[in-house]
Amino acid sequence: MLSEHTINFRVRYSEADTMGYLHHSRFFQYFEIGRIELLRAAGHAYAELERQGVFFVVVKAEVRFKSPARFDDEVTLTTRIIHQTTVRIDHEYELKRGSTLLATAATTIACVGRDGKLCPIPDQLILR
Amino acid sequence: MLSEHTINFRVRYSEADTMGYLHHSRFFQYFEIGRIELLRAAGHAYAELERQGVFFVVVKAEVRFKSPARFDDEVTLTTRIIHQTTVRIDHEYELKRGSTLLATAATTIACVGRDGKLCPIPDQLILR
Amino acid sequence: MLSEHTINFRVRYSEADTMGYLHHSRFFQYFEIGRIELLRAAGHAYAELERQGVFFVVVKAEVRFKSPARFDDEVTLTTRIIHQTTVRIDHEYELKRGSTLLATAATTIACVGRDGKLCPIPDQLILR
Amino acid sequence: MLSEHTINFRVRYSEADTMGYLHHSRFFQYFEIGRIELLRAAGHAYAELERQGVFFVVVKAEVRFKSPARFDDEVTLTTRIIHQTTVRIDHEYELKRGSTLLATAATTIACVGRDGKLCPIPDQLILR
Repeated sequence: MLSEHTINFRVRYSEADTMGYLHHSRFFQYFEIGRIELLRAAGHAYAELERQGVFFVVVKAEVRFKSPARFDDEVTLTTRIIHQTTVRIDHEYELKRGSTLLATAATTIACVGRDGKLCPIPDQLILR
Repeated sequence: MLSEHTINFRVRYSEADTMGYLHHSRFFQYFEIGRIELLRAAGHAYAELERQGVFFVVVKAEVRFKSPARFDDEVTLTTRIIHQTTVRIDHEYELKRGSTLLATAATTIACVGRDGKLCPIPDQLILR
Repeated sequence: MLSEHTINFRVRYSEADTMGYLHHSRFFQYFEIGRIELLRAAGHAYAELERQGVFFVVVKAEVRFKSPARFDDEVTLTTRIIHQTTVRIDHEYELKRGSTLLATAATTIACVGRDGKLCPIPDQLILR
Repeated sequence: MLSEHTINFRVRYSEADTMGYLHHSRFFQYFEIGRIELLRAAGHAYAELERQGVFFVVVKAEVRFKSPARFDDEVTLTTRIIHQTTVRIDHEYELKRGSTLLATAATTIACVGRDGKLCPIPDQLILR
């Protein structure tokens, strides 16, 4: 499977706060888009996985906010798989506006079934 | 069933936009809280209804924004059932800060099953 | 100025609710994107207008929800200016997934200054 | 100043995702409420600080998600100041439902002026 993906998008009006900055909670919604698009680029639709009963839940997240993003900024998100076990995937993220680094982050997601219990990551998603 | 309910809460930081105003899309999240709390005051938990396969979807909404709400404002929401058929409920809403009217609104919600198809509103929710 | 614009995007994971449907409040965030992109297509950046002290606030909104949108659905939003006065603009919206109509809506926005008071729409934004 | 505060609230419908879980990005909005209410309990309104040109931005955040929260769950958030310098405050958080631990987290916030540049935390907010 592909292990890195880059996507560009604009900060939406409804995502910025009173300071005019992208609200810090929104970064996690961007990182989720990064994971989903990395998966899609590798040929897998997360929506389809969920219909099959395969879910990924975030178990750990760490972010360092370096510089604010503002409404209408064009930002670039790079998402990278850095480690994978039979049930967990570790991603790293870099969010930039041009050459300005806005945030770096790392998450661990775990594969669970409909019951919320850990289950092995399906074979076709294994990074080789 | 009860047909009117009033609730107070504060505008959250993450709900205000760059203008410092409660984002207009957020009013609909407040109205939803109003419907859910009206239901609870009448003895019904919407979460429990959903577990039983009874869902309510919004089919129509109308809002007039009169005055902005800002972060940390204490607002008062009054939710009222104004009409009910076997499958639909019409609500009206008034959002105020003190005596200042912030918005008036009306919605129609419809009762659907797990399949998203219209189904009769359960007996115990019928307004008499 | 251009008076119609169409844009495509995908429903994000964080925008869907427990029913798996795009939450109804989110439609208003989409319509806002529609207005901003229609403006951009006409050569104006709303972020720049705000820096100059020109703001648009929503004073009225009406939506009819026809069919649910789900996470990862590719949707098409058409935004149309249907009426304009010296201080107000009326838009209409159509949200579709392929040929399926998901929602129709109408909003009225008003031009205000930094003080939140009505002010004339800048000349360059006047529809001719 | 007070250094610990506990608040209870319910998970809102619009905050849960397709899995029926409180979306992980929402936890950060809860932690922000925790910080703001801790400040209020100590006699300070964050809205007022912002009007005076004192802002706090999140520079670092870490969360461990232990167990999901669902729509309508009553959760308890404990927010604690664990370290403070002239420009930064470190908080720790615990989110629980009854005795079940849902998440633990830590953030660092920094005091900035209207220009976004670091500035000393006002005297009255200094923990003694």
